[in-house]
Amino acid sequence: MSYSEFTIEGRNAVMEAYRAGKTIDKLYVLDGCQDGPILSIKREAKKHDTMLKYVTKERLDQLSETGKHQGVIAVAAAYEYATVEEMLAKAKKLGEPPFLFLLDNIEDPHNLGAIIRTANLAGAHGVIIPKNRAVGLTATVARTSAGALNYTPVARVTNLAKTIEELKKEGLWFVCADMGGELMYRQDLTGPIGLVIGNEGEGVGRLVKEKCDFMTAIPMKGNIDSLNASVAAGVLAYEIVRQRLGAS
Amino acid sequence: MSYSEFTIEGRNAVMEAYRAGKTIDKLYVLDGCQDGPILSIKREAKKHDTMLKYVTKERLDQLSETGKHQGVIAVAAAYEYATVEEMLAKAKKLGEPPFLFLLDNIEDPHNLGAIIRTANLAGAHGVIIPKNRAVGLTATVARTSAGALNYTPVARVTNLAKTIEELKKEGLWFVCADMGGELMYRQDLTGPIGLVIGNEGEGVGRLVKEKCDFMTAIPMKGNIDSLNASVAAGVLAYEIVRQRLGAS
Repeated sequence: MSYSEFTIEGRNAVMEAYRAGKTIDKLYVLDGCQDGPILSIKREAKKHDTMLKYVTKERLDQLSETGKHQGVIAVAAAYEYATVEEMLAKAKKLGEPPFLFLLDNIEDPHNLGAIIRTANLAGAHGVIIPKNRAVGLTATVARTSAGALNYTPVARVTNLAKTIEELKKEGLWFVCADMGGELMYRQDLTGPIGLVIGNEGEGVGRLVKEKCDFMTAIPMKGNIDSLNASVAAGVLAYEIVRQRLGAS
Repeated sequence: MSYSEFTIEGRNAVMEAYRAGKTIDKLYVLDGCQDGPILSIKREAKKHDTMLKYVTKERLDQLSETGKHQGVIAVAAAYEYATVEEMLAKAKKLGEPPFLFLLDNIEDPHNLGAIIRTANLAGAHGVIIPKNRAVGLTATVARTSAGALNYTPVARVTNLAKTIEELKKEGLWFVCADMGGELMYRQDLTGPIGLVIGNEGEGVGRLVKEKCDFMTAIPMKGNIDSLNASVAAGVLAYEIVRQRLGAS
């Protein structure tokens, strides 16, 4: 996995990047610049929730790599996604039963970053995210992962339910968090496992949940419904770690 | 604990609120309004990272409670903090050994909200935060706590180390997360306990750490240094929950 940032400079190039669906993490615009093309770019930035910064010409010149920024520079991120096969190969090489995280449409970049960080420290071999709807690997995710994105492979798949089907053939069991499930301490979570984490509002989607082998519950004593998604992922991942360590 | 929002309306009132150091969560300004007092307020808003929204006169009239908004309405939050004594009384009433969270300068409101949410679901009797330097109970904290702020008492104390001293007299033991500590599974975390969580960058401060009875370690397999603060709090809190439930 490697993460790097690069700049896109000039009005056409930036507009093209938005049209191509590229994730722009930050946009620098010359302060006071109000002409048509710039206004169009600012509309796109607003639509895509890009962080917008108004800066002086000097600052733009400094940021520019081409020297031809025309009053606008976008900062985008370049990632090399891993494949699921690479994750399985990694586990095999380490002589460990595979341990993967599957995230069903996590939408908050802070949560995604924190979960990748947890996956790294819990010794998981990779994180699988769906291509559509969910948040991708933005600069915020890279930052909140505290460097974990450089070590823990992340794969993007078209259909999470189909990926689960395929991984079952490789011997993995899938567990998802559900209040109606058995208490996590009472389930055997050792062996090759895929931990499925649902999205912040709706939990794990029906189609994905149906593919899971079992549902597991975090004990809840309080008055509210659920833990934050990244905290729930951490609590479940560490129950797997505890069982793998044979600790009690 | 109760959380409510109220509005501050009119130019002088809003400016005064900023001068008094009040936390303004959101600022509504009449779109297109550019005179001196409004520009001063916008400068303050920028300085304090207030969320700024430009709205129509109709929207302001609708939001206004006094009808005298003069083009600007601020939304602030009002909280009733609990006392540490109330938390101990709550535990006693439930017939449970006290279980408190102590947060040593958590600075990210998302983390604070997520931790209060965890405290609620893990069955803790309260969360103690220091008065200075750390983030207070802003609207972001209330939102990310997912309602837990309405149930789980939060107390603010002047000196966390002194509060620990006082609570030791009440029979509490204090544990803080530290990589050099004993693995958490091997420690007895039942009984009256205070879980001390450090800040995002520096962990638990020296003065507070010296007051702790023991240090406990979360097992870490990966390449990076530490979990996200709210994830670490969740993993530790749920090890306490597991031991209290007698699960293995």
